[in-house]
Parts: sequence; structure tokens; C-alpha cells
Amino acid sequence: MRHPLLEELKDPHKLKDFKQPQLEELATEIRDVLCNLLSIRTAHFASNLGVVELAIALHSCYDFSHDRIIWDTGHQIYPHKLLTGRYEEFSGIRTYGGLMGFPNPNESDYDLFMTGHAGCSLSTALGLRSGDKILGEDDRHSVAVIGDGAFPSGIVFEALNNAAQYKRNFTVILNDNEMSICPRVGSVANYFDRLRSAPFYTGLKHEVSKILHKVPLFGDPVERFLAQVKESVKAGLHGGMLFEELDFCYYGPIDGHDIRLLRKYLKMAKQAEGPVLLHVITQKGSGFQPAAEDPVYFHTPPVFQTNEGKAVFEKEDAQGGKADDQKTDTDSKELVARQASEEVAERVETNSPKLAFTNHARDAILVQMRKNRKVTALTAAMCQGTKMEPVREEFPDRFFDTGICESHAVAFAAGQAKAGLRPIVSIYSTFLQRSFDQIFQEVALQNLPVTFLLDRAGLSGPDGPTHHGVFDLSYMRIFPNMVVMAPGDAGDLPEMLDFSLSHSSPCSVRYPKGVAHEISGKRSPIELGKAEVLDWGKKEGILVACGAMLVEAIRAAELLAQQGIHVGIINARFIKPLDEEILAKAIEENPFVITIEENALHGGFGGALLEMAAQRHLRTDHIHTLAIPDRFVPHGERADLLANMGLCAANMVELCQRLSAGQPPMPITDEKHPSPL
Amino acid sequence: MRHPLLEELKDPHKLKDFKQPQLEELATEIRDVLCNLLSIRTAHFASNLGVVELAIALHSCYDFSHDRIIWDTGHQIYPHKLLTGRYEEFSGIRTYGGLMGFPNPNESDYDLFMTGHAGCSLSTALGLRSGDKILGEDDRHSVAVIGDGAFPSGIVFEALNNAAQYKRNFTVILNDNEMSICPRVGSVANYFDRLRSAPFYTGLKHEVSKILHKVPLFGDPVERFLAQVKESVKAGLHGGMLFEELDFCYYGPIDGHDIRLLRKYLKMAKQAEGPVLLHVITQKGSGFQPAAEDPVYFHTPPVFQTNEGKAVFEKEDAQGGKADDQKTDTDSKELVARQASEEVAERVETNSPKLAFTNHARDAILVQMRKNRKVTALTAAMCQGTKMEPVREEFPDRFFDTGICESHAVAFAAGQAKAGLRPIVSIYSTFLQRSFDQIFQEVALQNLPVTFLLDRAGLSGPDGPTHHGVFDLSYMRIFPNMVVMAPGDAGDLPEMLDFSLSHSSPCSVRYPKGVAHEISGKRSPIELGKAEVLDWGKKEGILVACGAMLVEAIRAAELLAQQGIHVGIINARFIKPLDEEILAKAIEENPFVITIEENALHGGFGGALLEMAAQRHLRTDHIHTLAIPDRFVPHGERADLLANMGLCAANMVELCQRLSAGQPPMPITDEKHPSPL
Repeated sequence: MRHPLLEELKDPHKLKDFKQPQLEELATEIRDVLCNLLSIRTAHFASNLGVVELAIALHSCYDFSHDRIIWDTGHQIYPHKLLTGRYEEFSGIRTYGGLMGFPNPNESDYDLFMTGHAGCSLSTALGLRSGDKILGEDDRHSVAVIGDGAFPSGIVFEALNNAAQYKRNFTVILNDNEMSICPRVGSVANYFDRLRSAPFYTGLKHEVSKILHKVPLFGDPVERFLAQVKESVKAGLHGGMLFEELDFCYYGPIDGHDIRLLRKYLKMAKQAEGPVLLHVITQKGSGFQPAAEDPVYFHTPPVFQTNEGKAVFEKEDAQGGKADDQKTDTDSKELVARQASEEVAERVETNSPKLAFTNHARDAILVQMRKNRKVTALTAAMCQGTKMEPVREEFPDRFFDTGICESHAVAFAAGQAKAGLRPIVSIYSTFLQRSFDQIFQEVALQNLPVTFLLDRAGLSGPDGPTHHGVFDLSYMRIFPNMVVMAPGDAGDLPEMLDFSLSHSSPCSVRYPKGVAHEISGKRSPIELGKAEVLDWGKKEGILVACGAMLVEAIRAAELLAQQGIHVGIINARFIKPLDEEILAKAIEENPFVITIEENALHGGFGGALLEMAAQRHLRTDHIHTLAIPDRFVPHGERADLLANMGLCAANMVELCQRLSAGQPPMPITDEKHPSPL
Repeated sequence: MRHPLLEELKDPHKLKDFKQPQLEELATEIRDVLCNLLSIRTAHFASNLGVVELAIALHSCYDFSHDRIIWDTGHQIYPHKLLTGRYEEFSGIRTYGGLMGFPNPNESDYDLFMTGHAGCSLSTALGLRSGDKILGEDDRHSVAVIGDGAFPSGIVFEALNNAAQYKRNFTVILNDNEMSICPRVGSVANYFDRLRSAPFYTGLKHEVSKILHKVPLFGDPVERFLAQVKESVKAGLHGGMLFEELDFCYYGPIDGHDIRLLRKYLKMAKQAEGPVLLHVITQKGSGFQPAAEDPVYFHTPPVFQTNEGKAVFEKEDAQGGKADDQKTDTDSKELVARQASEEVAERVETNSPKLAFTNHARDAILVQMRKNRKVTALTAAMCQGTKMEPVREEFPDRFFDTGICESHAVAFAAGQAKAGLRPIVSIYSTFLQRSFDQIFQEVALQNLPVTFLLDRAGLSGPDGPTHHGVFDLSYMRIFPNMVVMAPGDAGDLPEMLDFSLSHSSPCSVRYPKGVAHEISGKRSPIELGKAEVLDWGKKEGILVACGAMLVEAIRAAELLAQQGIHVGIINARFIKPLDEEILAKAIEENPFVITIEENALHGGFGGALLEMAAQRHLRTDHIHTLAIPDRFVPHGERADLLANMGLCAANMVELCQRLSAGQPPMPITDEKHPSPL
């Protein structure tokens, strides 16, 4: 179908002139655009279908070129993008150089904050409200839209606690779709459920209040209380006590797919005294039956297969992880395609079927839980992303999904460890940043044996800078007692988990979003602080690979060998403690040392190596540290991004060639990569 | 007075045999011990006086050698320590080698977690509860005691959201003393106030319920509703709806100084179905009139002055900061005393009156706020600690205390910056760890001009490892866009703040707990990424000081000059971006380079220098990085701790002497410093 309204809508101001039928027609067009997108590219889907009417209602009631809107987390930003002049570029969303799948202030003034982590919308919207007030623009409204999944994040509560000072023009819209990314957990979810099923809905409240005025007063002692009783009744009739107790005006719940009703309540909210919480019920995947029926799968579904003009989905089975592997396999294929040569690297078994590191981690968790009843597994609303559904099913009593509450998850794991359990906390690298202080105080300071599995450690690909997990090596290794590991291949990962669960200190294991290759040949066992020397080479130079970059190092070495340059290869395995003996020998015996890691340059593995070398008073002027430069990396395919930054075999080959020839290293320009902000 | 009960009480099990009068006598003894302590040493005071009866009631109702107790934050742990066999060592609390002023598992099995940061008690207690259940010890109770000041921390809400699964043996005690460290702010505080003043107190509830049963039913339409109305009334009568909505059983509020009442309710809580929140009202400073009247001052008051047998307090005036300066001046005196020589360092004006860095920061904030109405100041419950009361008084509309909500504070500041303000976020280094992810997403990723002032950056002294702020250089410099500075002296600090407020990116300025010396002579202005060369020396070696360690470097250089060794001195000023030109020159032209910083070795300033040198392919085998080694540092006087780790002029002098003589550096053993855990 064509989209005549969207094609003409360069600017949301025009929505003010739209009549109700046009607004509804617009919703239909937006849904169609979203469904079309999913036929070409994986993207956040169900959540966007759920907020079509809400986005239209908001943009038709407010002027967000003046007023402020923050979409919490930001994955539900697509209708907003379509309504704010980005229809034409929309089909390129989530591709390198195209629109971001999250809000991006560089794209539009209507996107105020680049976000991706949950829960901060109330705080930033309050800050905007405060700034506008101080600067004499008290008429500007601030609106935060937050899902019920993000709502239990602690910072939301902190913002609620700090909101009462804004008596006007501050509105929180609770977009309640009964889902986090996974089904919701916890008391807040139960509370929202009760609100929805409460006997006194908005319409009824008024009626009941009227009736109460007719209740007569009696003689003593009842009379004495009844005035108060009536007040209590009024409070009791009112839903949303939790919010009312925190000084919010609570409205709702109302149907979030009824544009007319939404507009009515938004206008009420604009006039209200005191901060407003408007509770809106939406359906994830609304308007697209398969997505509405399975919103977990359709959170970020794979590309549609078309079968006689109808969308067909090939769902993963619980064990396999097919859906995500399609993505990661694509990554891998492109990575392979980028090699400087067509040669097949010999030591990497590229022909064996590949699973993502995520799958290997899940399988390793299952193995450990089967053999040791003290092992528990924890996730923060990422049961699906970490492919842990089988863990949840097999061990319901030892599996814990805390919801999007990473701080709590880590402190809770520390309590379990203190009680004698061996908790495994599986949280994406970027989201574990939310637990930084709990890793410090509750885990490292107590020296408790909590194991951290950091998935998506490195570039996350199309999600972009909010989701890239490129800081964890830098932040995990600063804490005393913490052991920091990165598996070089699929084989290392279960061994590292096994090691962690027998070690007496906290351990972390980080691995990227991507397929896990398998290195053939005899492997050395995982031992604390021991690197694995795959090849000492011929003292002509050595590559020290941190984590999954190992496969690139192996490929580079094999290509170089064909050119008569014999560099060594070390699989670092431990970022902390470092294998000082092996690494010092490598530094002392080679004309050049190249480290490679999918982590920020500052404070990462390369930095750790340099610190160790300085402590031992070794020369380091022949050490070359390849890592992610000091800027935020935009979204795009992981393999493209890595290659652009020189984190690939081809770049290592060129660098080694030049160093072997006595030439200076080529400067690593990163110009293909303008900072996203 | 003597303390016969405490002297005999080696073990809290004996409390089970105590009668009510003995329990009350015990409270009197504990109060006396606390007051005695304050006559010899500064310590957390008012909070401990407030929980004397609560601690007694808890230990007499539970067996915490089997059950679990977590005192949130942990500064109110003193009565607990006295009741668990630590009476004899008590007078040495907060001294090096003595008891910690916070819970310490190394001291006693009754202390489960070493804490100091607020809010994690519910999460760790839940983790313990979970662990005990899985390990078949479901009878063990878990109790978390948390103050109303800590309660608004986001992680508390996350834990409340995750607690409902524990139907038995989980109790939260809300110790409501109407105070944070500073007076409380926010809606949660207001809510607690309403609970206390609610018309229906515990005792009344039952009576009212009975009366309600007598309310007759009427004809239509009232009758139709009244059944429901009665239910609503019952709910409305019930205080603590906020907690009830989150599936907790709410009891209280009750008098927290009535041991008999406390014991009655604790026994009820032990029998309850569902997690319990027991609301206890206590008075900070209870039993000691001056402390009860001014609990902010008496949070950590200075040592008593004795005047004819009566305690006399010399309170600081709002501008001066006398109380804390007594402490920091002591630090400074001891630091000076530790110098290898009696010589007076010439360039450091030791005779001028000294103020702490904290005072200089506050004064600089006032200057900036007076000249620019866009400047705001934010703190997270540390208005007193950061000496910002005058800021609050002079600029009530531009001063924001968020309560102990660091995550919110940073995201809120980001919102203000986006709206066009220039927020200054003043948070202690160790507590800013709680905002790590907001620094990443809300500030650095958006490249918003938020200025961070990190007080207590370095060793905090008697508070110990939870309060040492030794990781911030490592964690701040990993984020793109962030400028990281450390003033070398009192003069640098206001200039750095001035620079920050005109710079377009986020900036951080970190400084220690201690007096700020003033370097004399002509000073170079603060420019982005520019170090200050105080003396290039004679190419015989150079000292590169990061932050306040500069005074030690100057002293060392002057002592060395007297011995004919002429080392240069650089005031690094910028940790990020580094002054590559100056530092590369220093590295290239000197036989040795010594860096010194009050930050962890891993990823700190020294690490940054090494990374820069490697990128430029400079030799680094002559660089010596003095920093805090990779272990947690115990409590003790800051000067003692620094000297023990070699972060002092004496150590630099010895190192330079050896290096100048061609000898290897002495190994830095840190054996005087056993890890606190």
C-alpha cells in the first residue's frame, strides 16, 4: 500500500489539523511501514506496533519542538521517527549510515537523548523540566513514556521520589503492555495487573464518590469515625495508590489504542496540578496477529520469509537458537568475507556447524547446574537474549529473572554466594554497567565467588553505541579480587565457566555477539592466570589475542606464514591476573608484539599488558595495541565496524608486513567512523 | 560508669535470658559507651544512639549465628558490635588495626557483609534467604534494617519488587528517624511523615474495623456499592499502602525505643505469611540531648572538648568548615611529619592557613553561581559533607539535593544540561560509582556539559575501603568525551571549575579528603589537555604528579636538590586528554620518570601515560608508576595509609636516589597492609 499521509507529513505540527479519521488512517499507514520493514530486516517490532496510537496522540496534543518527550529505553521510537519527518529514510533504519533504531539527537531535534538502557527517562525529563523552569520557560511540558518492563528499574523510583516539586507540566505515561522483553516478574507487575482489574475504573470513581455523599451519619461511636471513613473510602476507591502515595496524580488505566481517548486524557494531564502518571494499556504487536500472540519472539524477530505473499516465520527451537544465529552467522560470513585472502584458515574449523557464544554459554550453564545443586543462574530480563529458557524450564527453583534490575541482581547473587551457593550472573556487558557499584561493594570487596557471564561484550552491531559492550575489560579489572577472562574460542568458554565455579574469588567471562569458532589441535587446560601459547613463532613478531579476536589472529598468522613471515600466536585467556611470565617472554623475545581486543583502548587488555611491562621494567616501544578507539562507535554490522577499526586479520597482516620490513605502522585512521554524536 | 552487663556479654545468645529491666540497663550501658567514644574520637554517633533498643530487641528475638542480619549502609553498627562480643576492642574503633566503623566479616561472623554504600541490604538479605532455602535451611530468617534516608535508593525498590517470592522469614525493618545524613527530601520522606501522622494507628485499626461491621446497608443504589465500599475502607484504614501494593505485610509505625514493643512486633514478624515491613520510629541521637537536637552535626561530630567535666562542642560556622578541617589538618600534620627530612619545603606555603579542598570547591561553586545564572549545583544527600549549606541558602532555586539517589542525580543533571543549564554534580568519588551507567549513557554518550566534582577521591581515612574513592580516574577516563582533571593544589581547583563551565563536553575534577596546599610562584592557566611544568629539572629524572600528590613531589624534589639530584616536576592536571607533548618530552629526555597518584594502579593516570607512550612508540622501561596497589585498603589515617603504600615524598626520595645511583628500585611491599578481607 502507499502511505499518502506519511509522505506528506514532514512535520508533526500538521497533526493539529488532522481529524479523527485521518489520525486513524495514519495509524494504519505506520503499521504498514513497520510490517514492511520486518520483511527486509530484523528490528524491534512488537513494541513499536504497540505505541502507534500513543505516538500519534502525543504528537497531536503537544508541540515537541517546544515541549519535551523522552521515550524510555528508546526501542519503541519508530512511530515517533515516522511522525517527525523521517519517513523517507526509514527503510534504512539500523543499517550503517542509516537511521538508528533508537532515538538519535543527530537525526532530529525531536530526539533529545540517545538511549537504549532502561529507566532514565523520568530523570532526564525532570532535568529538562527543571532547566526550562530555571531558564524562564516554565510553559514547556516534559513527558516521559515508559514501559511497564522498564518501570521496576531503581532509577525510576528515585525519579518518582524527586518529582513532586514539579507541580505543573510534568507527565509520565506508563505504557503497560504486560511485558518486559520477557514476561514481567515481580510485585510491580502484579500491582499493574491489579490496577487493570480493579473494580473501580476511572468512569466509576466519580459515581461512587457521589453516592458516598449520601451516606448518612449515625450516633456515637460510629459518627465519630465516619467523616474519616468517608475520606478513606475515597482513597480506597482510587486506583494507583502507589503513585498517589508518591505525590503523583494517577489517571487510568485507559485503552492505549484509542486515539480519541488518549487525546482526552493527555489534555487533562496538561491541565493537572502536580505531576501526572497516566496509565495506558497497550498490546505489544497490536495490529499484527502473530506478533500480538508471541511478543517475546517478536521483540526483535528475524527477517520474514515470504511464502506466496504471506509472511512465514521460522522459529528457533528452544535448544538451538536458530533465530539469533541467523544474525550471528551473517556477521560471521561477512567477517570471513573481509579477510585479506580467500585462503581457508587451517586451524579454524570453519566448516563445522557454528553456534553463537551465547549458546555455548547456556549449554555450559546447564552442564554445571546438572552436576552441582549449588549452582544458580540469574538474568535481568534477558532470559531470551541469553537463550536461557531451557535453564528456566529445567531448573525453575535455581533460575532467577529479576526483571530490568541489574543492581539488585548482582547484590542478590552476592547474598546467595554468601549463603554458600555458586551463582552465575548472566548480563550483557553494556547492562552490567548498571551494577558497577554492586560489583565493587557486594562482590569484589567481600571476595565472594559470583561468576559473571558478560554476553554481547564488544560491538553489538545494529543496536549501536548504547548497546556496544566495549568497556567491561576496563571496568572489571580495576577491582581487587576479580578474575577477568575472555574465551578465545568455543572450547574455552565451558572450561572457563568450570574454572570459575571452582575458584574462590569472583570471576568474569566475557564474549561477543557472534558465532564461536573452534580452534583445533591439542589445547591447554584453563589455569588461573595462564595464557595459551598456540605458537611461539620464530621470534619474528607475535600476536596476542584477547578473546574472540583469536580467530582473526590465527588467520593473520596463516596468511603471513604464506608470505614467509612467522609470527607467534598467544591466546591471552586471562586479562586479570595476566600471565606475566608468558607475556613478558613474548615482549622480550620479539621485535614486535601486537595485541588485539574488542574493548576500548583505555584501560583494556593492552593497557593491562603495558602496566605489567612497566612494573617489570620491560621496553614497550615495540608493542602495538589494537583496540576500539576513544570514541563512541555507531551502529552497523559488527564485522564492518570491526574491520573499519582495524580489528581484523587483514589489518594485522598489513601491520606485520610493515613492521617486518622495518617500516612504521600505518596510522589507524577511523575516519569512516564519524562519532554518532 | 562501669558496664557490668556488656563486660559479661561475650555472646548475644545470653540475651534470651535477660529480663526487661536488664535489657533496659543494657541500653543505658551501650549509650554510655557511645558517648565515651566520642570524647576520644570522631565517629558516626547520632545514628548509633538511635538504634540501641532496636539492636537489643533484634538480638534477643533472633539467633543471628543462624539467622541473618544486614544493617544497611552499616554506620549504625556500633550497638550490634557491642552486643556481639566486641566490647573490649571497642575503644579502638576506626583506628588502624582496630575495629572498623562499618560491618566487617573479618571481625565477627555476625557481620555478613562489609558495607558503607546505602541501599543494598534488602537485596543481599534476599540473596541470603534464597541461598538458605535452596540449601535446605528454610528455617533461617533474614532481616534487613534500613534507614529512611537510604530507602529512596533505587536498588531498594528493585529488591521490594523481587521480594514477594519469599513468603516466610524475610523481614525488612524501616528505621525511620526522619533523617538522611542531611534532612530527607522527596516524596518517600513525605510518605513516611504521613504514615506517622495517619489517623489510624496500629491499635486503632482493629477498633475501626469492628465499627465498620456495624454500618448498616441501605436501599438501592447505595446498597449495591456498600459491600465494596467497606472493603475499600478497610484498605484505606490500613497504613503502608505503598508497601502493601508491593505485596509486603506492613506493620507499624511503632516506637523504636520501646524494647518490649519492639520484641512483640518482631515476634509477630517471625510468624507472618509474606515478607514483612516493620516501620519503627527512632530518634537520631536518642538519649543524648545535644545529638537529638542537631543530628546533622552529630552524624559524625568532632571530638568533644571537655570543659569542667562537661562535653563542649565547637561548631563550625557555615563558611569555614572548622569541624572537618580539624580532621584534615590532622591528616596533613601527620603527612608532613612523615617526610624524610625536617626541612621546610620552600615552594609549599605551609604557614598560610589551610582549608580543605572541599571548602575551596564550595567557594568556587558560589563564585560561579553568582556570575552565571545557568549554573546549578547538585548533591546526593551530601550537602553537609560537601559543605554546600551556604550554596543551598544563597541559591535555593538552583541547588538540588536528590537524597541518596546518585543515579537519578546524574541523569537529572544531564536533562538540565540538555535544557541549557550548566549543572555541577558534587558527589564523593566512591558514591559516584553508583552512577556509572548514567555517566556513560546520559552524559558522555550525549556529550553534555555536566561538571562532576569528585570529593574524597583517594583514601577516605577512618571510614575504610567502602569509602575510599580510589577507582575514579580509572572509570572516568574510559568514556569518550569525558575530560578528567585533578587539581595539583588549592589554586588549580577554582580554575578547573571555571574551565569546566566554559567547556562544551562533560568534565570531572577530583580531589582528596584533606587540606589543599597552595603552590607559590607564577602559575600557568588551565588549558584543555595542558600539564603544568613547574621545573624541567636537569634531565636527571622527573616526577609527574597527578592531583594533590603534587605537594609530595615538590617536597621530594627539594630534598633531592639538597643532595645534588635535580629532578623535574610536572603537575599533570589533565588525566584526559593527556598533555602528550609535554609528557612525551619528559619521557624521552629523562633517565627515569616517576608518576604518583592517589588512585588504583590499574587503569589510572600511570596507565594512561603508558598507553600514550605505547601509541607513540616510546620506551617505557624507565617509567615508575606509584599508585594504590591492587587490593582493598583498610581503614586508618589517610597519611599513614599513603605512606605505607609509598605515596609520599620519602618514598620518592629513596626511589630517585636509587635510580640516580643506577640501582634497581626497591620492591614496593605492602605488607603493613593486610587486605581487610
